[in-house]
Amino acid sequence: MKLLITGGAGFLGARLARTLLARGQLNGRKVNTLVLADLFPPPADLMADARVQARTGALLDQCAALGAEGFDGVFHLASAVSAECELDFELGLRSNLDTTRALLDALRAHTQQGAAAPRFVFASSVAVFGSDPALPLPAVVQDDTLPTPQSSYGVHKFICEQLVSDYTRKGFIDGRTARLMTVSVRPGRPNGAASGFLSGIIREPLAGLDAVCPVAPETRIALASPARTIEGLIAVIEASREDFGGRTALNLPALTVSVQQMLDALAAVAGPEAVARVRFEPDAGVARMVGGWPARFESARRERLGLRPDTDFKSIVLQYVQDNPAAVTIPLRV
Amino acid sequence: MKLLITGGAGFLGARLARTLLARGQLNGRKVNTLVLADLFPPPADLMADARVQARTGALLDQCAALGAEGFDGVFHLASAVSAECELDFELGLRSNLDTTRALLDALRAHTQQGAAAPRFVFASSVAVFGSDPALPLPAVVQDDTLPTPQSSYGVHKFICEQLVSDYTRKGFIDGRTARLMTVSVRPGRPNGAASGFLSGIIREPLAGLDAVCPVAPETRIALASPARTIEGLIAVIEASREDFGGRTALNLPALTVSVQQMLDALAAVAGPEAVARVRFEPDAGVARMVGGWPARFESARRERLGLRPDTDFKSIVLQYVQDNPAAVTIPLRV
Repeated sequence: MKLLITGGAGFLGARLARTLLARGQLNGRKVNTLVLADLFPPPADLMADARVQARTGALLDQCAALGAEGFDGVFHLASAVSAECELDFELGLRSNLDTTRALLDALRAHTQQGAAAPRFVFASSVAVFGSDPALPLPAVVQDDTLPTPQSSYGVHKFICEQLVSDYTRKGFIDGRTARLMTVSVRPGRPNGAASGFLSGIIREPLAGLDAVCPVAPETRIALASPARTIEGLIAVIEASREDFGGRTALNLPALTVSVQQMLDALAAVAGPEAVARVRFEPDAGVARMVGGWPARFESARRERLGLRPDTDFKSIVLQYVQDNPAAVTIPLRV
Repeated sequence: MKLLITGGAGFLGARLARTLLARGQLNGRKVNTLVLADLFPPPADLMADARVQARTGALLDQCAALGAEGFDGVFHLASAVSAECELDFELGLRSNLDTTRALLDALRAHTQQGAAAPRFVFASSVAVFGSDPALPLPAVVQDDTLPTPQSSYGVHKFICEQLVSDYTRKGFIDGRTARLMTVSVRPGRPNGAASGFLSGIIREPLAGLDAVCPVAPETRIALASPARTIEGLIAVIEASREDFGGRTALNLPALTVSVQQMLDALAAVAGPEAVARVRFEPDAGVARMVGGWPARFESARRERLGLRPDTDFKSIVLQYVQDNPAAVTIPLRV
């Protein structure tokens, strides 16, 4: 089978690609071709695999060709991130809304010419939730909690969820939306997401660098490790429609932790000197956006799919250490 | 002040225009100019008013000019109707999604050049609700019930609600979304909406004509009379942001009636001979769409705005008779 990952050169896209290549199959069908579309070329280890092809350039310009090419499965991860969209309204509209629409229309054109509807996973986000002062979020988000997004990023994700649902209802794609929790610990450099510090406060101290935390230590967050996030995306594309349960977006599992608990886990792994690298500098804008995202989730649907959250944040820190040995430059206690 | 009504030559748009012209003011400010944009020219009585101007043509082509022109208030009613959108997917995307986006972007451009953000009422619809088999609607829809639209029309309306909310948050417009209930009794000819029969089964017998009802008599519907619907739109544009309560769409008041109760009201007004004109011919497609819309609503928000549903369906039939004397050709009992 032939798969497409948009945003395939990004952190999650590349990790998903590696996981798919290592598995070699999806739903028991052999993965012959994996196309990675992104603004940037994929990492060298991926390009070294004969099954991998790169489509490098703005996704909006590539949608028509990708649709005509035809895929058995698509993971649509490409996105401008939350803080970028707040700064540049038109960039957000173009990157997140127009591009998803163009991709869906290109896939629709292919299906309407007689091709089978591709399975399509849309990576939405916990950022669809936000606290409308007049309609506050419940303490625990359920499968049927109404999103009232408070950022353009969240609005665009929620809109695209609706498009994915309708293109699926019409049979143009076999679409499923998975709402990703905040992914921590992300390797590499900050990416402009409002949630970026939730990786930075772990990643930077482990590299012997200082980090800034713009929210209070008691702030609670719904997190998932990179491994659990990829596991969720694959489970969602492999699920039967019946198991997925309807066309409404699914909240992927979340581990609820406070920033303080994250730092306690960092201390357990790397000692209090590492935690001392983190400086609290409140940023009202970030605190409002991140603090508006819900911290606790319950989902009968994802339990039916067998998806479980990470067990604790210390295991997430250890996952990062294991996956990114070169990025950890200080002595550890474990 | 200068107002715009898109869909201003349609039934609701023209009725809203007449109401605004008769009031002469909105929020205490004199209505000097009322622009009616529609595919068709407005009715002659409206064109005879010196305050009225027509902008005739496809709205998508007019948005840029309308935005540049500048308005103090906008009622965005223009829309392709539900059955049309199910038949022609691209028409629905263009008429309901692209056109609203273009209108919002044109208003944004004007605001970004320094103009005050116009008040903007978006006419959404009860059709945003639908019963996803995996996430059935609650028996009574509340202010925070999650819409899971089951038609392209409902999807597009729900998407535009999100855009209106975000353009408002950014200060480009002062937007409010009112979800209209099924409006009955509409005069004139059927308009291609799946809900059209809910006017037809009253209107046609009163004109001595036969009518077809595609759903079972026990089907319950959330209705509003034309007068109450217009009242709701005006209350929503006049409300302060605080009274409107957040940026989430507001469900306008609904009278819950069964088709049988509607026919009983028709019998009370026009006798059993009128009801005998209605033939039941089940249509699974219409029954699925209309039957999926919720019939009962509770809303603390609209009660705070002082909005009340119609008291009973007989008064709605009498409202139709009074407003459309020439369309009632049979003897009445009242």
